[in-house]
Amino acid sequence: MDVSAPFIANYWQYILTVCIGIIIVQFIQSFYKNSSSTNRSSVDDNRKIFVDNDDDEGCVDDNGNQSVPTDDDCEHIPYGMVRYPNDEMLTRSRHFYEEMNKRRSVRFFSDEPVALNVIENVLLTAGTAPSGAHTEPWFFAVVSNPEVKSSIREIVEEEERINYAKRMGQKWLDDLEVIKTTWRKPYIETAPYVIVVFKQVYGLKKDGTRIVHYYNEMSSSICVGFLLAALQNAGLATVTSTPMNSGPRLRQLLGRPVNEKAILLLPVGFPSSDATVPNFHRKPLEELMVTI
Amino acid sequence: MDVSAPFIANYWQYILTVCIGIIIVQFIQSFYKNSSSTNRSSVDDNRKIFVDNDDDEGCVDDNGNQSVPTDDDCEHIPYGMVRYPNDEMLTRSRHFYEEMNKRRSVRFFSDEPVALNVIENVLLTAGTAPSGAHTEPWFFAVVSNPEVKSSIREIVEEEERINYAKRMGQKWLDDLEVIKTTWRKPYIETAPYVIVVFKQVYGLKKDGTRIVHYYNEMSSSICVGFLLAALQNAGLATVTSTPMNSGPRLRQLLGRPVNEKAILLLPVGFPSSDATVPNFHRKPLEELMVTI
Repeated sequence: MDVSAPFIANYWQYILTVCIGIIIVQFIQSFYKNSSSTNRSSVDDNRKIFVDNDDDEGCVDDNGNQSVPTDDDCEHIPYGMVRYPNDEMLTRSRHFYEEMNKRRSVRFFSDEPVALNVIENVLLTAGTAPSGAHTEPWFFAVVSNPEVKSSIREIVEEEERINYAKRMGQKWLDDLEVIKTTWRKPYIETAPYVIVVFKQVYGLKKDGTRIVHYYNEMSSSICVGFLLAALQNAGLATVTSTPMNSGPRLRQLLGRPVNEKAILLLPVGFPSSDATVPNFHRKPLEELMVTI
Repeated sequence: MDVSAPFIANYWQYILTVCIGIIIVQFIQSFYKNSSSTNRSSVDDNRKIFVDNDDDEGCVDDNGNQSVPTDDDCEHIPYGMVRYPNDEMLTRSRHFYEEMNKRRSVRFFSDEPVALNVIENVLLTAGTAPSGAHTEPWFFAVVSNPEVKSSIREIVEEEERINYAKRMGQKWLDDLEVIKTTWRKPYIETAPYVIVVFKQVYGLKKDGTRIVHYYNEMSSSICVGFLLAALQNAGLATVTSTPMNSGPRLRQLLGRPVNEKAILLLPVGFPSSDATVPNFHRKPLEELMVTI
């Protein structure tokens, strides 16, 4: 006992040292976690203020700086709209609804070519969408080159095969077979154009410093709404698909910068003569809105 | 020493016990953190697969179940589009661009009333947007009641005052003064309608079980793109604003369920005769797209 006592004390000391070490490491880790999450939330706050106060307007100076403008770089001008008589407003709104209501996502395309100027007008229309502080955080890669379309199909299908093999059960695969979506995406090569939609996660000034693009996904998605409406108006079909896990490889293939992220892949063209769509219905007005 | 040794040993034991206690607690905490984040990432994977394979189509059975359909609940039907001659496609696409390019975010409204059927057509048009597996994760509260509009303004301005007072410096406030956005939102009361856009974060079957709404924000934002295009087509103005920190109170005021989150607040009406907008420009085609 006389001999063992100090030994026991040391024994406890060794364990204690290890324990204290572990605690210190864990405290350091949790400290970093907290500080980073604090940063995130503060960005959130800014973002909210930013978009709330300025969801569309704002000016862009020569450096591409999208901070809220000063009198110098952005004066205000009078704004008026074409004013239609009430009955014409009603007719226009009904016709536009009937037109847009014919739109369906199409997965079976004809290889018939489409004039590029039509696509350009469609993308210019998409570019009229509002965005947080007028940052316009979107970019479109319009691919018609057969080799590049093949490479896109290869990348997307390669990732899809992995998705289907590893992430989805047989029931899921059977279900998808029914709506004719498998890992195969032949339409990527058949359609005359594949438009890859990029959101610009942040912007870059000429001096290389970053511009925060608040709500870049929401803005880019609203922009895609205009794009889809413009395609339908022009008599062109597409399917709104997200290139699962293919984003980085598509970005590299298309030579886009690191601040851009591929969010959607839109094959564009005419439906094939034997194209089919699932026979589903849309929400009636009472499930869509309430008047107060 | 003979006396103190066991005492020292006990002394070490007490500290050791505390240390081990702390370590156990921290391990339990980190375990829960990891497991929850694992769930998130697995949901992410499903979501990606889901949207990639089925970003629009799918059928909804009587229970509102939006899982991928079987032959029974969703047959496929032939689909054709109106086919315009090439020159007409070009004309239509150019006219639609010119029409949409006139759209600007308006913050100065006339109190002149607008027919509700026009708003209904606009929202029906918004409802034609594609959504992940046709979940249609959106809902619109159309407010024309003056008292409710006042309450909305009260809620939004109250939150805004806090935002401006606590989160924004003088420089920021001065900048915002220039583009005429302060914490004051008089247009909420002036415009004949305030449309509050809700995204349905999840759906509910009749038996009360939840339906996951993958990409509900992206889908709802694309839907808002159609909504804004429809307003512009009808000759109506709006500003795409996000109700910063007001979402939960607006949801309660408007009596919407907990699965809905207010993402946008759109005053809708005619611009006032003295309405102005910042004189900014949109990206030219070469900054918008690349052809490959």
